[in-house]
Amino acid sequence: MMSDAAILDDLRRRVDDSPFHRGFGLTVEDAAAGMVRLGWSAKEEHLNLQGLVHGGVLATLADVAMGLAVRTAIAPGRRHVTIELGVHYLRPASPGDVHAVGRVVRVGRQIAFAEADVLDGGERLLARGSGTYSVTAPRA
Amino acid sequence: MMSDAAILDDLRRRVDDSPFHRGFGLTVEDAAAGMVRLGWSAKEEHLNLQGLVHGGVLATLADVAMGLAVRTAIAPGRRHVTIELGVHYLRPASPGDVHAVGRVVRVGRQIAFAEADVLDGGERLLARGSGTYSVTAPRA
Amino acid sequence: MMSDAAILDDLRRRVDDSPFHRGFGLTVEDAAAGMVRLGWSAKEEHLNLQGLVHGGVLATLADVAMGLAVRTAIAPGRRHVTIELGVHYLRPASPGDVHAVGRVVRVGRQIAFAEADVLDGGERLLARGSGTYSVTAPRA
Amino acid sequence: MMSDAAILDDLRRRVDDSPFHRGFGLTVEDAAAGMVRLGWSAKEEHLNLQGLVHGGVLATLADVAMGLAVRTAIAPGRRHVTIELGVHYLRPASPGDVHAVGRVVRVGRQIAFAEADVLDGGERLLARGSGTYSVTAPRA
Repeated sequence: MMSDAAILDDLRRRVDDSPFHRGFGLTVEDAAAGMVRLGWSAKEEHLNLQGLVHGGVLATLADVAMGLAVRTAIAPGRRHVTIELGVHYLRPASPGDVHAVGRVVRVGRQIAFAEADVLDGGERLLARGSGTYSVTAPRA
Repeated sequence: MMSDAAILDDLRRRVDDSPFHRGFGLTVEDAAAGMVRLGWSAKEEHLNLQGLVHGGVLATLADVAMGLAVRTAIAPGRRHVTIELGVHYLRPASPGDVHAVGRVVRVGRQIAFAEADVLDGGERLLARGSGTYSVTAPRA
Repeated sequence: MMSDAAILDDLRRRVDDSPFHRGFGLTVEDAAAGMVRLGWSAKEEHLNLQGLVHGGVLATLADVAMGLAVRTAIAPGRRHVTIELGVHYLRPASPGDVHAVGRVVRVGRQIAFAEADVLDGGERLLARGSGTYSVTAPRA
Repeated sequence: MMSDAAILDDLRRRVDDSPFHRGFGLTVEDAAAGMVRLGWSAKEEHLNLQGLVHGGVLATLADVAMGLAVRTAIAPGRRHVTIELGVHYLRPASPGDVHAVGRVVRVGRQIAFAEADVLDGGERLLARGSGTYSVTAPRA
């Protein structure tokens, strides 16, 4: 994936400016029009009773990757919000490096669709996400 | 909702024993066979750039409430894992109290289905979740 | 469920005017603001190799019930289209009477959310559906 | 896509033997391990009031393509049933040729995941589907 420097800078600034994104500890590794790759690390605090990464944090990663991918595909002033999120859990996730790749599937006038791969450090698919986003005009 | 004391104790112990659940800061408020109500508080660190609670944490709350509801409806030794999670976001969520009510819709031999309401402090519906869980025999 | 005669008439007329709905053989049994109940009958031609009603027709019933429920909750001239549909299959469906109850969960300015129960003749839950609908201004 | 003749024959026989599949009028165009491509034609009887193909039939096509793809990836005697189906509608579908390509994403011991593209005659993406399938031992 060939990153676009201006898009990458914009997303990194957004991640830094958002309390949630900053606290979640993720890195924007690559970004281009319609596509974003995030890096993140699953630690002890993300594990459930069975020693596996909780599904909620994988869903969060998928949603962030898809939302940022939508961000790269709409005009600067417009806003996007998640209206629907779906995740399929394909394999148990162990502590360590996790990546999430978000891709825009289609951007319409009011609705955008995106999908995400959540991968472990060896690029094995852990989860697949899909999301629907409402895209609206800038707040007056 | 009338809580069952033994079920409530069991779930509270599980939440305490899981690094993720403990760190997420949630409280099991009520629990009975097939039903769980959680309390949680959205703080500054959960907000996105628009000052709203990030969708990933609402998805997490829904998944936890549904997973614990499934827990109350299967035999003690059996294990459950999320295989699919879906969330519809109905209203923007502001900082403050949030509740999640998980309910089992059906428990089969290998598959359980659950649904969740995510509510604000005034019991307004913020999101609706649905999930599919694989239920398996105890690990040998 | 207490039907509203004007809403019921409007939906029955729409079902009659749509080639797909008419051919599918469904009946609008009850309708009120935000809620619709359909009747339908699963015959030999709807069965798969295992002698069970194909999941696609249950998904269709859920979508029709939700779409018509959304119809009752938006202004007459506005149009709605399904942007996302999800179905959980809870029990195998045998030939015979099937009902689908669609309910609006929330109607916003551009997006509506609905849910559906698909039931057998004995009111046992066969499937649960959820859907997201785009609501737009009348075509000029 | 390079078809496997034995797999293609097996799926065509199954489609012929199932009352629903036969009546729905679909053709298995290509098939290999983990992948199936179907052909179908949207006629007047599949159109809604707006003159567009009803979403339920596109959901049906997606489910059939995914279910047959799962079929190619499990042992002959085992049975699969849809436990969850999701569809995103990306573009309105007009009368004419429609294709559905189903792909297995992962097959586990009890659960299989698949995805589908629904395309028009010009290979434009109309809808994306995802599904979860329960895979069980042969009925005794």
